Amino acid sequence: MKRWCLAGVLVSLIPLVQADATAPAGVGQRIAEQGTPQGAAPCASCHGPDGSGNAEAGYPRIAGLGAGYLEKQLRDLASGQRNNPVMHVMAMHLNDAEIAAVAGYYSDLPAPQASATLQQDDGSQMAADLITWGDWVGRRLPACARCHGPDGNGIGAHFPGLAGQQQRYLESQLRAWRQGQRTNDPLGMMRRVAQQLTDAEIRALAADYAALPPGRPTPAPNAPEPGFQLAAEAALTASAQVPSDFQPPARNALPSGPLGAMIGEGQAIFLETYRHPASAQYVGNKLACVHCHLDTGRLAGSAPMWAAWIAYPAYRNKTKQVDSFAERLQGCFTYSLNAEGSSAGAAPSLDSEPIRALAAYAFWLAQGAPTGATKLPGRGYPRLEETPRGFDPQRGEQVYATRCALCHGSDGAGVISTEHQVLFPPLWGPQSYNWGAGMQAIDTAAAFIKANMPLGIAGALTDQEAWDVAAFVDAQQRPQDPRFTGDLQETAKRFHSGRFSLYGQVKGPDGRILGAGR
Amino acid sequence: MKRWCLAGVLVSLIPLVQADATAPAGVGQRIAEQGTPQGAAPCASCHGPDGSGNAEAGYPRIAGLGAGYLEKQLRDLASGQRNNPVMHVMAMHLNDAEIAAVAGYYSDLPAPQASATLQQDDGSQMAADLITWGDWVGRRLPACARCHGPDGNGIGAHFPGLAGQQQRYLESQLRAWRQGQRTNDPLGMMRRVAQQLTDAEIRALAADYAALPPGRPTPAPNAPEPGFQLAAEAALTASAQVPSDFQPPARNALPSGPLGAMIGEGQAIFLETYRHPASAQYVGNKLACVHCHLDTGRLAGSAPMWAAWIAYPAYRNKTKQVDSFAERLQGCFTYSLNAEGSSAGAAPSLDSEPIRALAAYAFWLAQGAPTGATKLPGRGYPRLEETPRGFDPQRGEQVYATRCALCHGSDGAGVISTEHQVLFPPLWGPQSYNWGAGMQAIDTAAAFIKANMPLGIAGALTDQEAWDVAAFVDAQQRPQDPRFTGDLQETAKRFHSGRFSLYGQVKGPDGRILGAGR
Repeated sequence: MKRWCLAGVLVSLIPLVQADATAPAGVGQRIAEQGTPQGAAPCASCHGPDGSGNAEAGYPRIAGLGAGYLEKQLRDLASGQRNNPVMHVMAMHLNDAEIAAVAGYYSDLPAPQASATLQQDDGSQMAADLITWGDWVGRRLPACARCHGPDGNGIGAHFPGLAGQQQRYLESQLRAWRQGQRTNDPLGMMRRVAQQLTDAEIRALAADYAALPPGRPTPAPNAPEPGFQLAAEAALTASAQVPSDFQPPARNALPSGPLGAMIGEGQAIFLETYRHPASAQYVGNKLACVHCHLDTGRLAGSAPMWAAWIAYPAYRNKTKQVDSFAERLQGCFTYSLNAEGSSAGAAPSLDSEPIRALAAYAFWLAQGAPTGATKLPGRGYPRLEETPRGFDPQRGEQVYATRCALCHGSDGAGVISTEHQVLFPPLWGPQSYNWGAGMQAIDTAAAFIKANMPLGIAGALTDQEAWDVAAFVDAQQRPQDPRFTGDLQETAKRFHSGRFSLYGQVKGPDGRILGAGR
Repeated sequence: MKRWCLAGVLVSLIPLVQADATAPAGVGQRIAEQGTPQGAAPCASCHGPDGSGNAEAGYPRIAGLGAGYLEKQLRDLASGQRNNPVMHVMAMHLNDAEIAAVAGYYSDLPAPQASATLQQDDGSQMAADLITWGDWVGRRLPACARCHGPDGNGIGAHFPGLAGQQQRYLESQLRAWRQGQRTNDPLGMMRRVAQQLTDAEIRALAADYAALPPGRPTPAPNAPEPGFQLAAEAALTASAQVPSDFQPPARNALPSGPLGAMIGEGQAIFLETYRHPASAQYVGNKLACVHCHLDTGRLAGSAPMWAAWIAYPAYRNKTKQVDSFAERLQGCFTYSLNAEGSSAGAAPSLDSEPIRALAAYAFWLAQGAPTGATKLPGRGYPRLEETPRGFDPQRGEQVYATRCALCHGSDGAGVISTEHQVLFPPLWGPQSYNWGAGMQAIDTAAAFIKANMPLGIAGALTDQEAWDVAAFVDAQQRPQDPRFTGDLQETAKRFHSGRFSLYGQVKGPDGRILGAGR
């Protein structure tokens, strides 16, 4: 706190002058190196000439961060939405064009080297677990990597890169989030996460992220500003923990030998089904098992694999037969993963590598679970009661814009990295689940959303919002139902006769009846 | 008892004269109708002109019973091995030829109608359960039908037909077995069974069998007289109950709907794999799952299905891969059921009806069992420690002759009814498991035998006897190993290198090296 005050004294000596409304090329660099006549100090004076920040003072590195993120922070600092007396003064003297220019300048600078060296200790393991897996069971904490990117380099304007950031800065910000001193996070997500971190975890995470090599962030999806108000009221108290008597084995308890290797492969396929070498050829979109089964299929209330394993074989109305677990997996490929559009053109066979490996993985997750218990608490998605107002795609559009588009994009296409890694899954369009998938049924989608979305603040949506946004998502065009008979109305009648599918019923945003998309 | 005494008084009036050593045609009928000059009373005087016995007096029907059985009883009555003062006097006055003649005469008579009407009450259900299933879990009681035939019409000389027998006679005999008054049963089997029956069960069984329509018995296998001495010492105390914490669901607790139907089909396939319409085409011998997995795959210590279900997928040395449960089932078809010799020529596919149904059945048996518990008590066959004397097929041949041939036949071919139903499974030769099966390994066979054989008196064999007889059985020719490379020694080296397989190692009884049989 003393350091911030000292910096405030220094910059207050510079007179305040109104900046231009637009800024020509080179303006960003000039502001960085010389400040502005209107009163902004040179950024370099604190953040260093290369933008790498100051380890000792805890000033963040800003070089190589996303321009959208830097812009947003400067605006929030100017408006007071982000509370920092020193930077408030700086930012309030920059006009929109100057903010864009200086953000662009620093974003284009090469990211400096990591600011710390990775310590191989218990804290590092603790941090690595939180970064990669989160702590869903205990605290419903999503993995840091889910929003900050698999390499910690950030996604778009709301999820900054953390890799290589100054350790002291990371620690101070996590504490600020935790204590409510920092509040400019979308939907209150970061506050809810930080509130549940221990001091030791904060130290470990800061040390770990500081030691990661920084790289380029992934561009944000095209989306309006998310709703921030959700944070203060609902999200911070939301913790939709679905009760469960069962716990799958610890991730690090994999058995040794070929079975363990196969289980590990199954887990890897589960996480990246669309691009894993064993499964990619059977996936016709950009989805993975984990997108519908959070926490790698472990999470109660998110259709966990352990509850599914012990419930098969079972008769299914969809197939009109008793399906084995392997056949149920084939169904996921056929519909949710749109296998017809894959290079193989069909779901993997019962004795194929991905089916074997995914089955072995589910079997392992179910270690100790009672065979045949079809009502094990935590199975499937918790059923969501219907509301008096029903569901309405138009109402849902507003919910989507302020609560979902942040990650999934206004066009529902999600976020895919330049390495073809899916960071946020597509919800409709050619890369999403098809019209045969369970999730195209509005009741199923509403149940999933209510229990699991937005990620990490599940429960923050009202039942009505969950129903409406599910209806909105499922009122978009998506790949054809593999059971398509050649006749839309016939297919609708045979496979979509319930109240909860809009297939063949209403027009999509493109003016065509849903399901007539291709 | 009074009635027997009265009969004794009546017959003692007839003088005792030595009969001829041979008997011409018609002698049987003459003895039956007129008795013998040597002192045997006419059988018809007590057993009726049609041999149907006497319900009131409790005299058994003898018409239509197996000739071998009738002969044996007459000899035992003559020698006193079967204790009956009246019949002792009759039988001792018949020479061997006369015994054969009168036995043949009555055996050829048409069986009379059932002597009672089936009562549909609780007792009848109790009896039907014992007849069809036995009570393995509680008392390790095999089903009555296992030895007396599926229709209760008896098998060979040692397992009489009970269907349509006089109810009072059946009851009195069961009590006599239970109290040790009757002792002429092979290996003490019937005594051990009867000792564990309650009064209510004895009444119910007698009533039920008396009401069954009698028919022709199935001929006995070709075999020497079994050892009877086992009975008194070992068998009556033997009850090799394998401890188990787990109980599969009751047979009558099948779920309703398509899954229940499939489970039921799986159970039916399990019992008659060789001839069930869904599985027969994949079975190249005369075996069924139940022949290695007693009590329809329910019995602890007999490789129960519930313990297998929860242990898969698993890595297997035999296949060098992680096998699913369905793949494990395929292995049973390939080896134990010799699928290569079937009309389909191969094991059923993973999505075939028998694999689906058997998997559903195993899944159901495992209801509530903890997934992944590979050490669940009762799994597999209890490992049998090696003995200082090792194992020796030649020593085993004696054990086999006196303990096993009774049911499985001197030629190991078992007993198959005229309706092609396997009553006792073949242990070697073209209709038995092939050289790739688990049971061709002597240690596996010894473990199975020790824990489960002879049926109903498991534990009656010493460890040494179990090892030796296993070695004898597995020193016989059987269908070729499906993994046969074309070269016996190469195949032996690759797949039979352990100490417990004799394949390619020694000569069989036909003078050819084992495995060179075809």
